[in-house]
Parts: sequence; structure tokens; C-alpha cells
Amino acid sequence: MEQIKIIEIKKSVFAENDKDADALRQELKSRGVFLLNLMSAPGSGKTTTLIKTINLLKDMLRIAVMEADIDSDVDAVKIKEATGIQSIQLHTGGMCHLDAEMTRQGLDNLDLKDVDLVILENVGNLVCPAEFDTGSACNAMILSVPEGHDKPLKYPLMFSVCDLVVINKMDVAPYFDFDLDKCKEYIHMRNPKARVIPICAKTGEGVESFAEWLQKQVIDWKN
Amino acid sequence: MEQIKIIEIKKSVFAENDKDADALRQELKSRGVFLLNLMSAPGSGKTTTLIKTINLLKDMLRIAVMEADIDSDVDAVKIKEATGIQSIQLHTGGMCHLDAEMTRQGLDNLDLKDVDLVILENVGNLVCPAEFDTGSACNAMILSVPEGHDKPLKYPLMFSVCDLVVINKMDVAPYFDFDLDKCKEYIHMRNPKARVIPICAKTGEGVESFAEWLQKQVIDWKN
Repeated sequence: MEQIKIIEIKKSVFAENDKDADALRQELKSRGVFLLNLMSAPGSGKTTTLIKTINLLKDMLRIAVMEADIDSDVDAVKIKEATGIQSIQLHTGGMCHLDAEMTRQGLDNLDLKDVDLVILENVGNLVCPAEFDTGSACNAMILSVPEGHDKPLKYPLMFSVCDLVVINKMDVAPYFDFDLDKCKEYIHMRNPKARVIPICAKTGEGVESFAEWLQKQVIDWKN
Repeated sequence: MEQIKIIEIKKSVFAENDKDADALRQELKSRGVFLLNLMSAPGSGKTTTLIKTINLLKDMLRIAVMEADIDSDVDAVKIKEATGIQSIQLHTGGMCHLDAEMTRQGLDNLDLKDVDLVILENVGNLVCPAEFDTGSACNAMILSVPEGHDKPLKYPLMFSVCDLVVINKMDVAPYFDFDLDKCKEYIHMRNPKARVIPICAKTGEGVESFAEWLQKQVIDWKN
């Protein structure tokens, strides 16, 4: 009986969040702001990827970043220093994900007047963030080579809610048993429409493809 | 007001779980079974580390393994094939962690009569599993070099609840900006007593130290 109670609470949390997320998405749409929810496991290279991507796009798009972490502000500082764009840190107070209300609180702390694109770097976690709609126009994720090509088998929801899977750290593929074809096959089992872009954020290889994809999403959203 | 409600629910879930976990721990103690809760981010090399460790210990200790994942059974199959020991897969049904009740359900599916050590490979996640006491005698975690040395700053609770941090994939350290001394310093900021053991599960280097540490824990627990 107790287990049933917990499930009901969870459901009501999800339903409430879905409503908040839809409202936030519509509001952002009417203001011409594209919100990207970027997810990954810890240490996949989200911040490095973002720095390279923002530097490619910042002359074409007005960009702001929200870095979510349980603690520390290392990522927001890094982004600000390396790109010069608006960047804030969200502390989740121990929470393993962001929901739409927490995302809204973050957005309230940004000056959105002249912003086309807000990138939300979600908490490093392949499970919980996939369950909560943040109100984003689009979900994307980064999987890094050292994590292994079998991750879509183990974290099905994450791969099924993402429109794009960036595969990072391709430069170290020779040192790991990582099969890119198998990885793509597993990703497409979860989400046949997912776009897959292999990159190396460290050297910058492939980052242009990610930047082009992102620019296209923002332009389509605004029109 | 709604936020307060959610916090209360969370608290009551934690309190209930702590009680269940203590009861399970006492029961296992009286049966002479040591439960190790092994946590990490996705793709840190838990399964490879376990295979090497079990093969070093299986003539000295009677070992069983429970592999927790949201989906798939690749890890349980791998462990069974590579070590020959009792190995079962727990599917969490989308849940991001194991609690004491789920752990008990797993243990009920093992034959514990002649077992000294049960290793629980928790869901790959640096956030939620740290919040739920599984009833284990001991928590340990694996951090892998590609994840970066700053992880104790970002995932404070995980590092503070673990008695041991195994640092895996030391062989690829030259290809990543990983500072072992800094990592140890950050770990000890979170947990001054944590033991840190660098290994490379792929080559086997350092695994003996982990095996020795584990064997000592089991012997101390049984006496």
C-alpha cells in the first residue's frame, strides 16, 4: 500500500511539472527565446563542448547559459571567462535534476531581452533529468566515448527523449573498446529519429556540425 | 506551499528507508553476510573492476553479485561468464537508485546460505544512490579518470558517504587533464577518512589493493 502511495505522489509531481513546462515553453516561444536542455553523465565534457560551440555561434546568435550543479560554480566561471557571454550557476540544493519551476527561477535571473538562445546545462545524471520536462524547445545529450557504447541499453529514457546525441571524446576512441556503429544502432533502437554527431570538444573536431544543427533549430523556432 | 509538501514526502521516505536499512544491516550481520554497495557514474568501469576483483578473491571468499540497472542484463551476464559466481540482475523499473526494500528484494533472490560477501552494483548515477541507505555494511565508489578530478566538488554527498574511492582508468591519465593529487585533496575535503585507491581495471594494475581492502572489511565484519 505504501508503494502505491509513492507512485501517486510521483505521478502528480510529473503532471504538475508537465503543465508548468508547457506554459514556460509557450512563454519562451512568444518572447523568441530558444531553450536547449543539455544533459549527460558526469564528466562527459558538456562545458568544454559548450565553450567551443558558443564561440562559433556568438556572432550570429545572442546566447546565455545556465549551469546547474548540486554544488560549486566552476562551470559558470569557465564559460564566462572563455566566451564572455551571460552565464549563471544554478545550485539545485541536492536535487538530481531540474524541473520546469527550477528552470523558470533560473531564467528569471537572466536578462532575456536580447537573447535568442539559452543553454541549460542540466545536472550530470543519465536518469532523473530525462524524467522532467524543463520547458525547453529541445533536449540534447552528450555521451562520451569512455562511458561505453552500451549506454543506450542501460539508460533508455534519456536516449528516447533527446533529439540529438553528441558523442564526445572521439580522440580517445583508440584507447577504449568503443564501437560507434553499435552505439548508433543502440541509440536508434531507443529513438529512430535521433541525430548523432561525433565530436572531439578538446580539439574542436566535429563541433561545427553541432553548432550548425543548433543554429538551425533556433532559426526554425523563431520563424 | 507545494514545495514544502514535496520536502515532507521526501523526508518521510528517507526516514522509512533508514529504518529498513538498519534492520537489513543487522539481519545480514547476524547471518555473517557483508553487503558492499558499489556506486559510480555511468561507464566508470564498475563491471570490469568487479570481474578482476572477484577473480582475485573467489578462492578466499564466497561471493555473489547483484547488478542493478534500469534496463538490460549485460552486466549480470558478463559477471557470471567471467567469474562463475552467483550473479543476478535487478531491474529498477526506471528508478534512479536502490533503497533498502529494493535491496532486500534482490537478496531474497540469492541463495545466501554459503555467501560471505554480496556486492551490489548500484545504478550508474552520482546523485540519488548516495541519498538512500541500502542496508550495506559499507559504501564504495568508482570515479574514472575521464570524468575529471573536479567531481568531488560537484557531487559532495556521494563522496562523503563512501569509505573508499577507487579511481579507475589510470592508464588513460596521460590523455586527460586529470590531477590525482588535486582529486585526492577534493575527496578528503568531502570525507577526510576516505581511502583512495588508483587502479586500472583493464590491465589489472592496483586491483589487488582494492581486493585486499575488501577482504579486510569482510573479515572485520564477520568477527
